[in-house]
Amino acid sequence: MTTATALAHPNIAFIKYWGNRDDALRIPQNGSISMNLAGLHTHTRVCFDPSYAVDSFTLNNLPQTGAGLERVSQFLDIVRTLAGKNWKAQVESANNFPTGAGIASSAAAFAALAVAASQAIGLDLDERRLSALARRGSGSASRSIPAGYVEWLPGNNDSDSYAVTLAPPAHWDLVDCIAVLKETHKLTGSSEGHLLAGSSPLQQARIGSCGERLQRCRRAIISRDFDALASVVELDSNLMHAVMMTSNPALFYWEPASIEIMKAVPEWRQSGLPACYTLDAGPNVHVLCPADHAAVVRSRLEIIPGVLQVLTATAGGGAHLTAED
Amino acid sequence: MTTATALAHPNIAFIKYWGNRDDALRIPQNGSISMNLAGLHTHTRVCFDPSYAVDSFTLNNLPQTGAGLERVSQFLDIVRTLAGKNWKAQVESANNFPTGAGIASSAAAFAALAVAASQAIGLDLDERRLSALARRGSGSASRSIPAGYVEWLPGNNDSDSYAVTLAPPAHWDLVDCIAVLKETHKLTGSSEGHLLAGSSPLQQARIGSCGERLQRCRRAIISRDFDALASVVELDSNLMHAVMMTSNPALFYWEPASIEIMKAVPEWRQSGLPACYTLDAGPNVHVLCPADHAAVVRSRLEIIPGVLQVLTATAGGGAHLTAED
Repeated sequence: MTTATALAHPNIAFIKYWGNRDDALRIPQNGSISMNLAGLHTHTRVCFDPSYAVDSFTLNNLPQTGAGLERVSQFLDIVRTLAGKNWKAQVESANNFPTGAGIASSAAAFAALAVAASQAIGLDLDERRLSALARRGSGSASRSIPAGYVEWLPGNNDSDSYAVTLAPPAHWDLVDCIAVLKETHKLTGSSEGHLLAGSSPLQQARIGSCGERLQRCRRAIISRDFDALASVVELDSNLMHAVMMTSNPALFYWEPASIEIMKAVPEWRQSGLPACYTLDAGPNVHVLCPADHAAVVRSRLEIIPGVLQVLTATAGGGAHLTAED
Repeated sequence: MTTATALAHPNIAFIKYWGNRDDALRIPQNGSISMNLAGLHTHTRVCFDPSYAVDSFTLNNLPQTGAGLERVSQFLDIVRTLAGKNWKAQVESANNFPTGAGIASSAAAFAALAVAASQAIGLDLDERRLSALARRGSGSASRSIPAGYVEWLPGNNDSDSYAVTLAPPAHWDLVDCIAVLKETHKLTGSSEGHLLAGSSPLQQARIGSCGERLQRCRRAIISRDFDALASVVELDSNLMHAVMMTSNPALFYWEPASIEIMKAVPEWRQSGLPACYTLDAGPNVHVLCPADHAAVVRSRLEIIPGVLQVLTATAGGGAHLTAED
C-alpha cells in the first residue's frame, strides 16, 4: 500500500508552547496542554510512488511551491529515512477552516501528514511515535495526534518528546468559541517566533514557573473545575504574549478587538458566565466555556466590532486514518 | 511665612517604576528615568495655620473628602514631623490636564505639594530632600522635582531614594505627543497596582534586567540617540505592562486604540519617522519624537479612531515656588 489518507484536528493550547530547547528537533522548553477542536480539520492524502521525480503538495487544491512545499518535503525526508525508502510523494491536503489566522493550521496539517505518510510508506507507528514524528513538522502537531485533552511531555530527545491524552473528549463538554478577527496570514509564523523567544528578558521566568501551571491545568481538567481552569489559562496566555511582545524584535499578535474581548471575558465571568480567553500566535480570541453556555458566549462575541465570524468546536478526537475518497 | 505656592509638571517614564521594595516608604525595586512635561502642570497653594482644626484640600476648586483628603493629610503629617509642628493646613491644588487618565497627576501633585508645604512650614530642603519627600506621597513624584531628563536612584532607605537631573530640558528637544483615549479615572490606581507587582511570575525578571536598560536609556539621552532611545523605551513599557497583565488579579490598562497606536508607531519609525511609544498605568499612549517631527506625529495620532485629543509637551523644568496669586 502506497497511498493513505488521514484526518486531524487543530488544537487550542491551554498551557502554551513557546520556545525550543532544540530548534532542529523542536524539543520544547516547557510542557504544554491543549484540547483538540472537533469540527475543524485537515484532511490529507499521501501517495508514495517510486516513479515520481519530485515531491508535490497541494493545499486546498492549490499547488504549493517554495517554503510551503519545502517544509512538507523536509518532513517526508524524515518519514523516508525511518522507512529506508527514497520514494517521492504526492500530498493533497485540505482544511475546512481559515489557514494562518491563529487556529494552528500547521498542527492539524502535520498531524494528518504524519499519520497518512507513515501509513502510506509502510511504517507501523504507535500513537507515541506518531506524536513524536508529527512534532518534527510543527511542535504543536504532536498534540493533535492523541484524542481529547492532551499534554505534550517535553522530553529530552527525539523519541521522548511526545503528547498523551489526559482525558478523552467525553470527559468534559468544553466548547471553544473562536472569535475570528483576521482571515489573512499572520505576519510572523510560529516557527520563526519560537526562535525569538530567548531574546525576551521574560522567557526564562515563564519557563521556570510553568511546572506549577501545568499541574494546576491538569488538576482543573481532571476535576472539571472551570474556575481553576479559567485563571490558569488566561494567565498562561498572557505570559506567552508577554514574552512575544518583549522579544527582539517585538511580536504583537493582538488586534484592537482582541483587547476588547480580553477585557470583556473576565467581566462576563465575574457576573456569572463561565468563560475564559486564550490566544495562540494570532489575533483570534478563543473563548472557552461549558457547552450549555456556548450559545450565550457566541452571541456576545458576534456583536463585538471587528469579529468577522465565530467558529465553535467541542473537544475533538485524535488524528486517524480515513477511508480513501 | 505660613503660606507658599508651587508648580510642578507631570513626567513620562522612559524606564518604568513598578513595584516597591518597601511599600510604606515607596522605595522602588528598580531605578527609573523620565522626562518632565512642560505645559502640563499642577499649581498648589499651602497655608499652615495654628488655628485650623483639620486639614482641608480642594482639587480644581472642588473640596475633597475621603481617600483623596486622607492621602494629602498623611503626606502633611510627614512634613509636620520634619518641622516639629502640628499645624493643620489648607491645600488648594489645580491641574491644567485631565486627572487620573495615565498622565501621572499624582506625580505633579505631590511634587508641588512637597515644595509648597515644606516652604510654608518653614523647612529649607534642598532638591534631593525635596525629591525624597515628594516620593513619600507618590513614587514618581520624586522625578517631578528635578528639571528636564531625570533619573530616580532607587536607594535603600528614606534619605537615599531620590531623583536627579540627567540632562536639562534644553539638552534635547524631544516632544511627548500624548494620545488621550480616556478622560475618566483609571480602574486601578498606581498605588494599589504596585502592591500587585510581586504576584506576577515576571516581575523579578523585569527587575533583574533593568540595570542594563537604565544604562542604555542614560546613554541614549546623553548622546541624543533617538533610535537607541526608541528601542529601550518601547521594550521597557512592554515589560511593565507584561508584569501588569500577568499579576493576580491581572491589570489591563490598554484600550483597543492603545494597541492600534502601539502597532502603528514602530511602522512609522521603520518608514523613517522617528517616533516611539510608551504607556504608563493608563490607556493613553505617549508618542515621543524630536520636535521637528511633532506636527506630523500629532496629525497622524489625531485621525486614529478612539483618540479624543492629542496633548503635546516638551521637556519641562523642575518643581518650583511661584509668586502668590
